[in-house]
Amino acid sequence: MSDDIHQVLILGSGLIGGSIALALKRVQIDVVLDDIDAEQVAVAQARGGGRPLAPGDTPDIVIVAVPPQEAPIALARMSERFPMATITDVTSVKSPILRAALAAGADAQRLIGGHPMAGREVSGAAAARADLLDDRIWIITPGSEVLAEHVRRVKRLIELCGAFPVVMDPAAHDDAVALVSHTPQILSSLLAGLLVNAPDEHVQIAGQGLRDMTRIADSNPDLWTEILATNAAPVGVVLQGLAEQLQIMANALLEAPSKQSEGRIHQMLQSGVQGRSRVPGRHGTSARAEAVTTVMIADRPGELARLFTAAGQAGINLDDVRIEHVLGRPSGLVELVVQPESLELLHRVLMSEGFDLRT
Amino acid sequence: MSDDIHQVLILGSGLIGGSIALALKRVQIDVVLDDIDAEQVAVAQARGGGRPLAPGDTPDIVIVAVPPQEAPIALARMSERFPMATITDVTSVKSPILRAALAAGADAQRLIGGHPMAGREVSGAAAARADLLDDRIWIITPGSEVLAEHVRRVKRLIELCGAFPVVMDPAAHDDAVALVSHTPQILSSLLAGLLVNAPDEHVQIAGQGLRDMTRIADSNPDLWTEILATNAAPVGVVLQGLAEQLQIMANALLEAPSKQSEGRIHQMLQSGVQGRSRVPGRHGTSARAEAVTTVMIADRPGELARLFTAAGQAGINLDDVRIEHVLGRPSGLVELVVQPESLELLHRVLMSEGFDLRT
Repeated sequence: MSDDIHQVLILGSGLIGGSIALALKRVQIDVVLDDIDAEQVAVAQARGGGRPLAPGDTPDIVIVAVPPQEAPIALARMSERFPMATITDVTSVKSPILRAALAAGADAQRLIGGHPMAGREVSGAAAARADLLDDRIWIITPGSEVLAEHVRRVKRLIELCGAFPVVMDPAAHDDAVALVSHTPQILSSLLAGLLVNAPDEHVQIAGQGLRDMTRIADSNPDLWTEILATNAAPVGVVLQGLAEQLQIMANALLEAPSKQSEGRIHQMLQSGVQGRSRVPGRHGTSARAEAVTTVMIADRPGELARLFTAAGQAGINLDDVRIEHVLGRPSGLVELVVQPESLELLHRVLMSEGFDLRT
Repeated sequence: MSDDIHQVLILGSGLIGGSIALALKRVQIDVVLDDIDAEQVAVAQARGGGRPLAPGDTPDIVIVAVPPQEAPIALARMSERFPMATITDVTSVKSPILRAALAAGADAQRLIGGHPMAGREVSGAAAARADLLDDRIWIITPGSEVLAEHVRRVKRLIELCGAFPVVMDPAAHDDAVALVSHTPQILSSLLAGLLVNAPDEHVQIAGQGLRDMTRIADSNPDLWTEILATNAAPVGVVLQGLAEQLQIMANALLEAPSKQSEGRIHQMLQSGVQGRSRVPGRHGTSARAEAVTTVMIADRPGELARLFTAAGQAGINLDDVRIEHVLGRPSGLVELVVQPESLELLHRVLMSEGFDLRT
């Protein structure tokens, strides 16, 4: 068996399934679609995402892209129906899904769990994009019985979609997303939930910190309930530990002040600094050195363009941009993040263009 | 007494004290400086922030800009030494500081607590900036015995610094910052602290959510220990409630799955969506409707300029911009936030310019 891929069946034409279909059509793969909702297939097909599954089709790979709670049965059925095909899925929790799929009869030699780290706060075939997966990590979790050629084939599939395969153990994957994705979601939602009954006066003095901390609280409760329920144990363990630490902090603050209680608070803050330094930077590697300049600009069309034109003409690349409007004023603070070696040139260019530099 | 301000004494030349000094020099105020650390005064003076305090100086206002635990005594001493001056501070907790200052002998008719809502993850006189306070909220908490002319004078001072005075009750201020500033700080630090001993493999798959949620974990542990200790009771109460809610979530996840436990999780997520909608938008008012478009651009000089030029020439104002680089690739996803009524025009303009729209 070569790892050539001629035909791919995608079961489920939502955001992820539909985007994979469009990505594969981009590289001339024969994409066939199936969905319990025939209309989703029609939408995906109309957008150039492939053709409906027909008798006689023999996909090299079947991608199950249905909601977590339907995935195990679908994986087992596809495994039976296409006995030569590599079988994979795209659900965001791996261990319980794979266990249930194997229990339902999926072939352990051909079943490889997958989790493309993409997707935004939108859903459905209509939101699918050919490049949703470009440059994204796509985790795969092959079990010990999987044959090597099926792993190679899934890796090839992922590369055809423009993404990067990363191999993990299924349980390690679930622990990892519990920590870096599911727990942050819950903390953000709980924090935002405190604001529901807060006085206006309290909420109105909030700044960038609270804004950043509550951004992901705006996610879809239905989808997230299902994700959290599917990864319940790993998330529960992290939350249990956090609840205890939060209780220790609450006690340290509510008891009579002492060197001990202040020491506990200081240590917690210090660990936070240390942990933050491990968060990957904007380029997926560990955080790298960067320099920041702040410019105050008038809040009107054209000002941002003037700013970026000046930087671009000088050959300076911006690693990041953050705009902070304050207090209803027709002005905004723009933070420009560049590599340290570009900072001096950026300052010179912006000053010569008359920009109001703040740092 | 007029609310004219000729001379201002700033006690403490750190980030905030130094920035106020630079802001006031900008409008030709006679700024005099004092600090237990003579070197900080020298740094501030060298940067154009004023001159050292001299015998015979009679400041109209004394701004106490020292750490929270030294502020009460300093406020009382300044009140005695300059019997005509308005006395204020810049500490981020108000009720206990003011109570202790009055107990130590500060004049209740002239003492007005203050809290400029500025400051970044840097500190010291060297980091001070003339415009740190521009467009910022500066909360003041005058007690019931304060004479009106002193309130007017502090408001004038705040305006001279480029900021906006907002009057609050001291206890309400402390409850508000416990909720919108101190609790987010602790949650961010605790979450980041979980990463200290996490396997590399887990941390490396982190995305934008974790990055946003841990940004403020990078703050100064010494300063924050003092802030939290000073506002211990209000923060402790919020944390106590959060610890209980987190425990409920942990239980809901760790117990056998049921409709009840899923219902609790769903309700928590739903409250988060509701609370998030109350977070002030970029213009300091309550959050307003906005629309988001995502564009994939090449990560090279000029591309951002081309993007913003296109938007600007069409008369579209951008409320916010967020750039997400992925995995070291020479490309980036740019999120443009506009008012909903501008969305269609923005799409048309960007497509006609050949931009790679993602949503």
